[in-house]
Amino acid sequence: MSEQKKKTTIILFSGDYDKAMAAYIIANGAAAYDHEVTIFHTFWGLNALRKDSTVPVKKGLLEKMFAKMMPRGADRMGLSRMNFGGIGAKLIKRVIKKHNAVPLPQLIDMAKEQGIKLVACQMTVDLLGLQQDELIDGIEFAGVAAYLADASEGNVNLFI
Amino acid sequence: MSEQKKKTTIILFSGDYDKAMAAYIIANGAAAYDHEVTIFHTFWGLNALRKDSTVPVKKGLLEKMFAKMMPRGADRMGLSRMNFGGIGAKLIKRVIKKHNAVPLPQLIDMAKEQGIKLVACQMTVDLLGLQQDELIDGIEFAGVAAYLADASEGNVNLFI
Amino acid sequence: MSEQKKKTTIILFSGDYDKAMAAYIIANGAAAYDHEVTIFHTFWGLNALRKDSTVPVKKGLLEKMFAKMMPRGADRMGLSRMNFGGIGAKLIKRVIKKHNAVPLPQLIDMAKEQGIKLVACQMTVDLLGLQQDELIDGIEFAGVAAYLADASEGNVNLFI
Repeated sequence: MSEQKKKTTIILFSGDYDKAMAAYIIANGAAAYDHEVTIFHTFWGLNALRKDSTVPVKKGLLEKMFAKMMPRGADRMGLSRMNFGGIGAKLIKRVIKKHNAVPLPQLIDMAKEQGIKLVACQMTVDLLGLQQDELIDGIEFAGVAAYLADASEGNVNLFI
Repeated sequence: MSEQKKKTTIILFSGDYDKAMAAYIIANGAAAYDHEVTIFHTFWGLNALRKDSTVPVKKGLLEKMFAKMMPRGADRMGLSRMNFGGIGAKLIKRVIKKHNAVPLPQLIDMAKEQGIKLVACQMTVDLLGLQQDELIDGIEFAGVAAYLADASEGNVNLFI
Repeated sequence: MSEQKKKTTIILFSGDYDKAMAAYIIANGAAAYDHEVTIFHTFWGLNALRKDSTVPVKKGLLEKMFAKMMPRGADRMGLSRMNFGGIGAKLIKRVIKKHNAVPLPQLIDMAKEQGIKLVACQMTVDLLGLQQDELIDGIEFAGVAAYLADASEGNVNLFI
């Protein structure tokens, strides 16, 4: 008799380093306990999936502005509070190192290695003027229907 | 044999345009997939249910202040980040139009047409000094007990 | 035949008075309906568990800074919006009193009396340089594994 795997789905809406860290720690934990895990990145959460290098793509003016103002990749994201123009994020990274905790970019690598499904919300990718080449490899593009298919069978569903 | 409908419940706590948009997109998607859907509006999320016109009601000073400082209706809400005094919200609405996505006020109309249950948390309606006449028609007023009754049978429960 | 209790688990990530209030109202409601309830405090949500008095403990400079800048206990937390340097939090407490609602510190006491399991995330306790003596009595210290064990059997799982 086959037994169904437990499912964890996380919507990562937030573009904050600390919230993304929480999302990826829960996701990696759930994968380690053999859950089938999906992180669905939407709105500012898409920034965690951006490549840290600039990618030459053609864009309209509005899209260029958005791209310019949003952090390029997980390592450039700020804290949800006490960020103080980036100083807070630097201090958190220092204490992460001191306590041998895992910084966000490595948590994302771990997630990929553990086979966690990383999804970019196609609608908000379009709204924010991002292009597929600007996002890291190995991710999927999908919409609310795909999210609901996973979440409606999920044991742990979170919006972060 | 009767089969029970899947249930989706969303607590909309946030008063941000982008977060409310995410809530209503998930809700409308779930309703389209035949889920029974409830959005429970509490604290700043109540602003999405305010009428956009001023309604003549009697209030105390504190209640008048709150009412004055909070956005009157979905269309006046700001972004959770990059709002820049409302400029960000305007730009997002422009890209929503450009990409034929659905703006928040229309998402709320769709939710009502699809029979999604829109609930205003009575306790926070009282705390913020709102009165029933100031909120849109066709909504229910309830408390945490009603929320838990829905959510404890829910397949997808989110706090946004 | 024994019937299993319903389970509610809340991750309290936020350090805002209003969000913590929402978390504790849902938790107390669920406990009243005989759910088994856990609130897992992580990152800024740990501030709700701090003692309001200063506790003499030895810390490094970075840890002292964090401790200094974060609110000491539930009563000192600010609002997620319209806080205006603490004025908003004061006004909310006034309307809470006026409407005979329950302020946050009392909600936390109620939670303990109802047997709600209050957990502090050990990893973020370490990151923020907090020490066990600085947190209120009667709480547990655990990690993501313990959270997932509870949540994967949960009926209502929220991230606040």
